[in-house]
Amino acid sequence: MAIAGNMIIGQELVKGSKKAIYAVNPATGEHLQPAYLGGGAQEVDRACVLAEKAFDAYRETDLESRAKFLEQIAANLAANVAAIVERAGLESGLPKARLESELGRTINQLKLFAEEVKAGRWIGVRVDTAMPERTPLPRADLRLRHIPLGPVVVFGASNFPLAFSVAGGDTASAFAAGCPVIVKGHSAHPGTSELVGLAIQAAVKSCDMPEGTFSLLFGSGADIGTALVSDRRVKAVGFTGSRSGGTALMKIAAARPEPIPVYAEMSSINPVYLMPEALMNRADSVATGFVNSLLMGSGQFCTNPGLMIVKEAPGLDAFLSKVAGLVSVAKPSTMLTPGIHEAYELGVAKLKSNNHVQLLAQAQEASGPNQCCACLFATTAEAFLGDPKLRDEVFGSSSLIIRCKTDEEILELTNGLEGQLTATVLMNPTDNKRFTKSLVSILERKVGRILFNGYPTGVEVCPAMVHGGPFPATSDSRTTSVGTEAIWRFLRPVCYQDFPSDLLPEALKDGNSWNVPKLVNGR
Amino acid sequence: MAIAGNMIIGQELVKGSKKAIYAVNPATGEHLQPAYLGGGAQEVDRACVLAEKAFDAYRETDLESRAKFLEQIAANLAANVAAIVERAGLESGLPKARLESELGRTINQLKLFAEEVKAGRWIGVRVDTAMPERTPLPRADLRLRHIPLGPVVVFGASNFPLAFSVAGGDTASAFAAGCPVIVKGHSAHPGTSELVGLAIQAAVKSCDMPEGTFSLLFGSGADIGTALVSDRRVKAVGFTGSRSGGTALMKIAAARPEPIPVYAEMSSINPVYLMPEALMNRADSVATGFVNSLLMGSGQFCTNPGLMIVKEAPGLDAFLSKVAGLVSVAKPSTMLTPGIHEAYELGVAKLKSNNHVQLLAQAQEASGPNQCCACLFATTAEAFLGDPKLRDEVFGSSSLIIRCKTDEEILELTNGLEGQLTATVLMNPTDNKRFTKSLVSILERKVGRILFNGYPTGVEVCPAMVHGGPFPATSDSRTTSVGTEAIWRFLRPVCYQDFPSDLLPEALKDGNSWNVPKLVNGR
Repeated sequence: MAIAGNMIIGQELVKGSKKAIYAVNPATGEHLQPAYLGGGAQEVDRACVLAEKAFDAYRETDLESRAKFLEQIAANLAANVAAIVERAGLESGLPKARLESELGRTINQLKLFAEEVKAGRWIGVRVDTAMPERTPLPRADLRLRHIPLGPVVVFGASNFPLAFSVAGGDTASAFAAGCPVIVKGHSAHPGTSELVGLAIQAAVKSCDMPEGTFSLLFGSGADIGTALVSDRRVKAVGFTGSRSGGTALMKIAAARPEPIPVYAEMSSINPVYLMPEALMNRADSVATGFVNSLLMGSGQFCTNPGLMIVKEAPGLDAFLSKVAGLVSVAKPSTMLTPGIHEAYELGVAKLKSNNHVQLLAQAQEASGPNQCCACLFATTAEAFLGDPKLRDEVFGSSSLIIRCKTDEEILELTNGLEGQLTATVLMNPTDNKRFTKSLVSILERKVGRILFNGYPTGVEVCPAMVHGGPFPATSDSRTTSVGTEAIWRFLRPVCYQDFPSDLLPEALKDGNSWNVPKLVNGR
Repeated sequence: MAIAGNMIIGQELVKGSKKAIYAVNPATGEHLQPAYLGGGAQEVDRACVLAEKAFDAYRETDLESRAKFLEQIAANLAANVAAIVERAGLESGLPKARLESELGRTINQLKLFAEEVKAGRWIGVRVDTAMPERTPLPRADLRLRHIPLGPVVVFGASNFPLAFSVAGGDTASAFAAGCPVIVKGHSAHPGTSELVGLAIQAAVKSCDMPEGTFSLLFGSGADIGTALVSDRRVKAVGFTGSRSGGTALMKIAAARPEPIPVYAEMSSINPVYLMPEALMNRADSVATGFVNSLLMGSGQFCTNPGLMIVKEAPGLDAFLSKVAGLVSVAKPSTMLTPGIHEAYELGVAKLKSNNHVQLLAQAQEASGPNQCCACLFATTAEAFLGDPKLRDEVFGSSSLIIRCKTDEEILELTNGLEGQLTATVLMNPTDNKRFTKSLVSILERKVGRILFNGYPTGVEVCPAMVHGGPFPATSDSRTTSVGTEAIWRFLRPVCYQDFPSDLLPEALKDGNSWNVPKLVNGR
């Protein structure tokens, strides 16, 4: 497998005819070869035609075959680790170790979904047996299974060029559900996308999956993003990115003749609450843990701690000095793209020019292009409550400390927060449990995941994970984009009434060999 | 309990200040006392304040208490059957037997959701235990449960003044999920709504539920419908009604600062496919069964068979004569409201004036106001494919037969259908299985429920039911509004990471007494 500047449409490799896209090495600013000519309406149509054609066969693949397909993608990626990591490093500025770990996570995620496919819980089989003798009316034989929605469009994310991109969580869960996938590759890492796309394309072929099960297009949002989301054959959208990007897709999807669900993971400032006893007893370790989390990946994690909420206390100034000290000696680190770096600088500049915000610390000066210099700011609860702009995400290693006078102020401030992916509570056993209970009760309604005595960066891929939350953290709080529950985003129930047994789907037949979990007559 | 023209806001009885609403007896045209003065912004605000205030306590009620509350509503309704049925008869024109059966269904539905609450599957507990020794990184203790979305607004439907109204499926499933409910009562049956609302209000009180768990408002869509769906405290909407009404609510909900889900069940023409062998061998019974289904409830069922698709065959004309004969002797029957009757007349008039549509039969002339005279029309596949207006629902006992020349034409026509609640296949064992398989494969993607050798009217309330389907049958194909799976519409997952055990919700604690189903470490 080698990079050649191609899009992938089914088993074909295709060059577009629109403006060329070049990846940029953010560490040097240089353009990377090859050019990726953007696709247009024609490529969108071809990919959609193929996906539509593939859907009926792909959705009825048996559990073993579909699981093998996911495992084969994992195997193809595992066989190309060096090439993928090298190219991803050039395109993203992320360190090798991080990318190796991210690729490992991507591979394991595919394997986890292979297991999830085989377990068959996602079919959600329910059988209510006929009651021909029931009075006044007999009951029919009713059987329910979940079927996939149809072709899914996945927008690759810039901040996880592997785990949330071409073969990332959205793609893995959509494939697992039985949906063909068309990826709109992120323009920041087309080479990485092509390599990963080739791994999927090869798996489609060697596993005898229908050709249109997978396609990968490049191009601008205006050229292909809108066209893909608008296409009548597309039935759901997965997206990880900015609030403006996500809400734009939501609007397009809602305005279609047939509206479709958009799963957009967008914006979160991930509040961290530091309780008084924890502050008093472990200021040092909290300062270190918090700053490590803040600096991780140049702050370009969806779960980056952009807000810390603390109550005025004797030890607070000393604690903030420690945090500020750690931030001020932080090494600048390359951000993913010039655009992201620019947005970070703008966000930081806005905070600096805000009269109610104090700059506590700033990291060392940048030594190269597109570097993130971490920033630590502070403000009061009053100022935060009075200025909705302070709730905006600054994507990168910037965090705002909010000094609160009372517990009530903390609760009021929390009530005013928008939806979040995470919230973190740092407390000691001696901290006020009653207050914490009140706080957790508010947080449950605001976030997808609440953590105690940890840091929000780092999202485990497992059955109990929720990487989601109320708007604007995501567009649909009923779902998660990480963990096995993500598969439910792409499924819908269908009921089969009094079907002749030979026309029933295999999973619904009496005595079928699939052996999936069933709810029979409500038990 | 007696009718007094009141709205219900928590434990208060309130009179509005807007234009008076009077129910109309559709069988006579007379206005029914009392007047219901419509509510406005003030009442919406009061109901929302109370619902918001009730939410935290109501959502954490234990399984037994919440189930008892649902059972108490059922008991209060059962104690008032005569009064409710009498008033509902006056307001809807529906016969007593039908209303008694509908009330029985409503009561049983509440009991079924009480059982569903106790079974605890809806909490969807997942536990992934900590792995402190794992390398390179330890795994945290992760626990997932589903929590209710928040206060829900339910719009009562006109066609089931009991089963889809104040204490109907939307309300029962939202209560079961842990959501306070504000009902916007349908203006066609305010008296029935008030009686049923009083039954719920009394249950809230006797079960010690928080006051704002339930409110019932009357008023125009412009006065209170929009305000309710726009209110920031409302987190989901249930609706059964017209396509225009449902899509209007979807737009309002999507335009909010925080968009919320709308579960609108709207429009369906429920195609019935009659296969050649079935036509040949049991024309008589099919004709009778089909016409009975068409006439049921004056055709005012969401699952009314508005379309029959048949292939040209020697017996077809004879069969159609039989169906026409049955329709022509059908007795006119009172429709629910003058508005619905008017819309039916308009729909029928449009079909009559369509050059490509033939009137096969029309029922006896109306003998009173607002009566539905059943109509049977026929057209060709070609004409149907060429005129999208022929796909519009005509709410009432009107059906359109589509004569097809070939199997391919049937499949093409099916591919062109919009989303439906149901599709029905009438076939004999000797009918072409291969063709039926192709047909079912298309239908799965178009509908929520596929039936063989039955008729679509009649929706069982049970675990395996799906009363849903792709747009415009509903606004969200991932859900059902009938059956126990309806509870999932009002839930979202939250993950609890490394929680101190005394802060964990009861269902997530080790060794808790709730004894609900759990997925532990993926098993």
